[in-house]
Parts: sequence; C-alpha cells; structure tokens
Amino acid sequence: MKADRVRKVADLANRRTRERFGRFLIEGPQSVREAVTWMPDSVRDLYVQAADGPDGPRIAGETLTSIVERSQEHRIYVHPASEAVMRRISPDCQGIAAVGDADAVRATAQGTQLPEKPFVAAFWQVRDPGNAGTVIRAADAAGCDAVVFVDDCVDMLNPKVIRATAGSLFHIPVMTMGVDEFFGWAGEKVLRTIAADVYGTDGREPRELPEALRDQDLAGVGKAVIFGNEARGLEPGLLGRCDDIVRIPLYGKAESLNLATSAAIMLMSMAMSSHIGTM
Amino acid sequence: MKADRVRKVADLANRRTRERFGRFLIEGPQSVREAVTWMPDSVRDLYVQAADGPDGPRIAGETLTSIVERSQEHRIYVHPASEAVMRRISPDCQGIAAVGDADAVRATAQGTQLPEKPFVAAFWQVRDPGNAGTVIRAADAAGCDAVVFVDDCVDMLNPKVIRATAGSLFHIPVMTMGVDEFFGWAGEKVLRTIAADVYGTDGREPRELPEALRDQDLAGVGKAVIFGNEARGLEPGLLGRCDDIVRIPLYGKAESLNLATSAAIMLMSMAMSSHIGTM
Repeated sequence: MKADRVRKVADLANRRTRERFGRFLIEGPQSVREAVTWMPDSVRDLYVQAADGPDGPRIAGETLTSIVERSQEHRIYVHPASEAVMRRISPDCQGIAAVGDADAVRATAQGTQLPEKPFVAAFWQVRDPGNAGTVIRAADAAGCDAVVFVDDCVDMLNPKVIRATAGSLFHIPVMTMGVDEFFGWAGEKVLRTIAADVYGTDGREPRELPEALRDQDLAGVGKAVIFGNEARGLEPGLLGRCDDIVRIPLYGKAESLNLATSAAIMLMSMAMSSHIGTM
Repeated sequence: MKADRVRKVADLANRRTRERFGRFLIEGPQSVREAVTWMPDSVRDLYVQAADGPDGPRIAGETLTSIVERSQEHRIYVHPASEAVMRRISPDCQGIAAVGDADAVRATAQGTQLPEKPFVAAFWQVRDPGNAGTVIRAADAAGCDAVVFVDDCVDMLNPKVIRATAGSLFHIPVMTMGVDEFFGWAGEKVLRTIAADVYGTDGREPRELPEALRDQDLAGVGKAVIFGNEARGLEPGLLGRCDDIVRIPLYGKAESLNLATSAAIMLMSMAMSSHIGTM
C-alpha cells in the first residue's frame, strides 16, 4: 500500500482531516465488527493485517477473518496490509481498522425513526473523549433510543470517543444539536426534559432519583435526560428550561460522582424501573 | 528542603519504596484535605507550596491554607516548599502532597466497627489502578460500610488509586483478604454473599438485578456484593461459593459494561432500594 494512503488514513485521528475529507477512523476488532454489522453503509474501506502466502495474502486469525467475511456482503473495500502498515494506521488497532463516511453516520442518526415514547440521553458540552464514549455505551446498555450531544461537545467521530463506546456508536443514533434546537426537538417529540443536576436553581430543589423513579408520570412518558459538563454541570438558564431536575442521592461521604458514573446510574435506574413497570 | 528527602517522597510512587518504608503518597488538595479531615492519624508529613515572604514562607492560596490549618490540630509536620520542589514531589499535586503511614491506614480499616447489617463491596483481582479507585468512590457514594479487595488486587495505596478515589479512600475502610479469608469473614459477620456476574455457572443462571432488588430477603440483610476481574470476571469456583448471582440487564445492543460502571449501577441501585425500604 502506498505510504501516502497510509498517512492519510492515520491522519483521520485529527479533527481537521476528518472535516476536510468527511471520513473518520474506526479502530480495533470490536468497533469494526459492530460498524460492519450495524451500520455497514457507513463503512467505506477496511484495512486488515495479512501475511503473504502462496495463494495471496492470508488474513491473520479467525476474529479478523470473520469480520472481513461479514464486510463482504456490503460494498466495503478490503485492503490487506502488513503488520507494520497496520501499526502505522493506528498503533492500537489490533490488526484491523476501517474508514467510515461521516455524512452516512449522520444521515443514519437523523433518519432513525424513534418509537412513540422515546427514551433519550442528552449531554451538554461533554468535552472529554473518554467520557463521551463511555456515556454513549451506558445509554446503549440502558436501551436509550437516541443520544443527543447538545451545544459544543467533543467530536463524536474522534477515535478516542469511538474506542470508548466499545461499538455502541454503531448501535444507537447519536445526534448533535444546539440548545434551542434541542428544546425545540424535545417539544416536537413531546419529550419530558429531565435535568440530571446536584444543585438545582435558586427556586427549585432537585428531586431525589428514587422518588422520581416511583413517579408514574415519569415512567410512562417519552423523556430526555440531560447531563451537564464534566466540571461545570448544567447552566442555570438551561436548568430553567427543563421540566424536572433530578439528582442521585449520595449515601456516604463522597462529595460527587463523575459524569460517566452518574449517567450510567441514572439511565440504568430509569430503564430498570420502566421495564418493571411494563412487565 | 534536601534533594534527598524530595527524592524519597517522590519515590513513594513505586510499590517497592512504599513497602520498604511503610509510607505512601497523597497528592492534590482534594485527597490531602479528605485524609487530614477523616484519617488525620494516618498522615505524617505535609508538603505545601509556599513563597518566601518578609515574615517567613507564605502558603500559596486559600484552599491550601485551610488544609494546612486543619492539619495543625493533629501531629502532622508541615513543610513549606517551592513550586519547583512540589513539582518534583509530584507533577500532578497542584501545590500540596502528604506522606501517609500505611500501617495506620490498615489499622483504621481493621479497627472499624461495622454496623449490625453491613453493606460491603468486594472486588476480586481488580488490577487497574483507575478502576480500583473509581469503585472505592462508588462504594462510598452508595453508603457501603466497607470495601474488601480480595486476592491479588492492585495496591490500594498506589497514588493512581488514591487519586481516582477522589478522597473516598479516607472515608471508608478498605481491607485486603485472601479468598478463603473473605468467605470466612463474611460467614462470621452473617453476610449474604452476592456475586455480580453476567454468565453464572453451568447449574445456576444469574438473577436480573431489578428482580433481586424487589426481593425482601436481599434488602433486609447484611450483604457483600463481589465483583470480578476487569477482563475475566469471577471464577466458577468463587461463584459456586456465593449465595446469589445477580446481573445487570442490558436493554440495548451493548454487549457488556465495564467494571467501574457495573459496580456503580449495582451498588447504587441496592442502596436506593434499601433506603426506600427503610423510609
């Protein structure tokens, strides 16, 4: 493979390169497998480690072979490459990487038909790629129908985000919206907006999560739970526009929970309680 | 301050040095403040950034000053140091670090009187320092009465563990035990042992968490929830010795949750459900 091409692919780790070419990088067996399985139309090229054999290149190992086989049912170009080339594409890719089409991912997210009473996880100004990926994974585990990144968040196609989602980026539509757009969209979909926040506003104390979980008004409706920035939480102006404010009770001496942990606890508790409610 | 002393303190980042001297390093305002507040008898020396002034060294800033004041009610030696020295002690310490006494921390943990029906979080072979710290913080938030590191875990006095606990290491007793010792201790304390595990054993399927939460037998008793290694989970032999096996349901397409997320969800759900039960 030409050095120029390898460099271009590796360069997709940079936001500017992603924006310029409308492409992004998917690294490692788990992410590539989930992309090929759940969003094959978003995958353009697949790079896989192979050794030269008497009958042409031999793909290294069963895991990689099965991913390549799955990709061949779709219009994905498979490029066998040496171990050294794969390492140059991405040092962490464990023998397999793919190039995705950013517009196709966005179109899939925008085009997803949400169910009648959707369960949405929204994040305002999430900035750390590891956190962003982890919260997408938590939203997926909780059975959320969509994730919305509100306002100025980290690029969801950053390779560190994708790695931290452990494939969940390809399971669940992830949309990006401004603040007004988010509240407009939530209104249109008749979603109850629930701020996850420890402090609330001057006039409004947050309700404790266990109490909110027993509230039938919350269980039986479409809802969007919105979480704030890692350091600053949610702005008062934004809190004021939400229908509810809910906080996770702290029973010990810990002063706080981090964003990823809070999101996992709140989304999963709501999921468990509404699944019990409908059993 | 003598270069030799600075090097010795910085060297506590290494396990071997910690074991040799029985000392460990506490870095940053949050951890040092919590140590000085909740386990002052475990803190020996405090290093704080100060500038030379006409009347002697002046401590840099209100946050650091208030921690130093708090420490002075106890037998803690305060050493003012230059910014350069503080950076050599620990690049991440934000102007304050302390040296703790490992035996004193262990004695505090062993000597803690548990309540009648304690809620214990146990971790088998947790290896990653960030995970270990995060799960201690989650156990603290859930109001657990103790944490037990079972078998061959990361050293809880590793600076990365302490940083990830965000002060919780000094809020909650953390004990270390072998497997047999753990089950012996749980028997003695009449704890129901609950394995957090996705697969269960050949003869025994895990129960789903929401079902387990509604089980009054689980809510009203002393219990120890045990979580497995990051990659391998819990061994069948160990699962076989537990009274219950419980798993977190996955409602979306995510295949799994990581250890820190699972622990936070399970411990906090149990805490919320038992606090409701006793309201």
